[in-house]
Amino acid sequence: MGEFDLIEHIRTRVDHDDSVLIGIGDDAAVLRPAPGRDLVVTTDSVVVGRHFEDHWSPSEIGHLALAVNLSDLAAMAARPRWALLSLTLPESDPEWLEGFLDGFLALASLHQTVLVGGNISSGPLNVTVQLMGDADPGGAVRRTGARVGDLLAVTGTLGDAAGALALGHAVPDFLLQRLRRPTPRNAAGSLLATRAHAMIDISDGLLADLGHLLRDGLAARIDLESLPASDALSRAFPDAEHRWRSQATGGNDYELLVAMDETEFEAACADLDTTGVTLTCIGRFEAGEGIQCRRPDGTLLEFDHGGWDHFHTD
Amino acid sequence: MGEFDLIEHIRTRVDHDDSVLIGIGDDAAVLRPAPGRDLVVTTDSVVVGRHFEDHWSPSEIGHLALAVNLSDLAAMAARPRWALLSLTLPESDPEWLEGFLDGFLALASLHQTVLVGGNISSGPLNVTVQLMGDADPGGAVRRTGARVGDLLAVTGTLGDAAGALALGHAVPDFLLQRLRRPTPRNAAGSLLATRAHAMIDISDGLLADLGHLLRDGLAARIDLESLPASDALSRAFPDAEHRWRSQATGGNDYELLVAMDETEFEAACADLDTTGVTLTCIGRFEAGEGIQCRRPDGTLLEFDHGGWDHFHTD
Repeated sequence: MGEFDLIEHIRTRVDHDDSVLIGIGDDAAVLRPAPGRDLVVTTDSVVVGRHFEDHWSPSEIGHLALAVNLSDLAAMAARPRWALLSLTLPESDPEWLEGFLDGFLALASLHQTVLVGGNISSGPLNVTVQLMGDADPGGAVRRTGARVGDLLAVTGTLGDAAGALALGHAVPDFLLQRLRRPTPRNAAGSLLATRAHAMIDISDGLLADLGHLLRDGLAARIDLESLPASDALSRAFPDAEHRWRSQATGGNDYELLVAMDETEFEAACADLDTTGVTLTCIGRFEAGEGIQCRRPDGTLLEFDHGGWDHFHTD
Repeated sequence: MGEFDLIEHIRTRVDHDDSVLIGIGDDAAVLRPAPGRDLVVTTDSVVVGRHFEDHWSPSEIGHLALAVNLSDLAAMAARPRWALLSLTLPESDPEWLEGFLDGFLALASLHQTVLVGGNISSGPLNVTVQLMGDADPGGAVRRTGARVGDLLAVTGTLGDAAGALALGHAVPDFLLQRLRRPTPRNAAGSLLATRAHAMIDISDGLLADLGHLLRDGLAARIDLESLPASDALSRAFPDAEHRWRSQATGGNDYELLVAMDETEFEAACADLDTTGVTLTCIGRFEAGEGIQCRRPDGTLLEFDHGGWDHFHTD
């Protein structure tokens, strides 16, 4: 199939809604935003060797490419609406594309997100998605805004994806799914919007992403024992310090990290009840600098790095 | 420099405007669209070996990556407003990034376009830009809409970029600049909006892109002698048939191809006066199928392909 056949094939697989005036097949897509809403936009690429491996199924890659972008909108408490897909492929492989679309479009459908356009080039594999959403005016939740005394909470469980990577083989299916088919927390993000002082998604690792919430004079303390672990992770890593390492520095979790007033925590947990997503308090914001990770006995555990940096040179 | 230093460096080089509520540095950008306007969005990647070569300067690559996207909005007669930049880089090279930003941001500034966010990954070089703009409700010009009897017009000159590629060495500077620093025709596109029945930008080659304006029952005739050629191209390719080949099938021109009523042509040319961009009638839409290219003596010239397809397998 040539480039234009591939594009035409994608077009036939996509459903529109009334907001899409011109979708796939023109020079650009034309969309009608809901009046009076802010526009919230993000882009992320997934790259072999970092986000996925050669042997992953195309469906998993399609799911992941959208999931990482949905997660960014979740962290802003924005509603996802439209996606653009830029594919650079080593060869024209309709079967690969079909699988990729299976994963991509199934997740898009779950989130009422319409694929409205994109681009196909030949070259080394690269998958870049741009996701557009909307939010009430001023309703998007920023990274800045955490206050001294705020409680630090996280959705779901941490370390599953890193655990899957660390095990390498004989990986329990639950951990594998957490790595390959992460669930972006968009419903939870929306429900947390009014209570969150600051929010970010954990893509690079808890410590690395928590670092983005800090500033001069604002530090954070993490109680390692409180880090939420799945049963599968606890079984695979019975040694707590070993497990904490995956949980504190492993990336690819796509959970939300939230700063909020202590008095809001119970209500926030109740808000999330309908989503099935848990919220766990894992520490505090304090006056000072940096991040301290405390063992149950009060001693500190040091990590050699905080998480993923694409050009980490330590 | 690590990933986050690179992002911070980009942030310091970018100016905002009032429409950008949250720019570079959060999980997503938050923008305030002008009320009552449609949103027009596009994405394009530039890939080494297809759009640029290894030895190009980073500034040229930065210019090109934005130019190809601006050209898509020009073809919709939309006003560019915000860009996202997704860079996959083999290594952290601040000097390369600096040059890239020089080219990218200079062109962005010319078009009142703000870089509002993006993404940096490590991997084989890939540059993907998403460009968002706006248009009056229903004001975007589609590819469909050309009518039998419409005149076929093109902005600027054709074949310069393909001529530069065909020459390979000792390329006249004018042709080289047309290949490496193409000028997207956004002002012309806006001015043509109300008269154009259909519009597309010529990125893959005249015949390939003209093909997208056709449909069952709608054909096109091109008068080869009327194809607008720069002086530099005419000097480099004194043989007319040789030149026509570059003009008809060469990509990377980023001129606009327009269908309009014959009676509108003079007024359209006058509209473009202030832009310095010429408009040339190169043929007609007719009843029938396909594209005919006529020599001055009325005989037809056949081409073995119409232009660039990323997975062309003929």
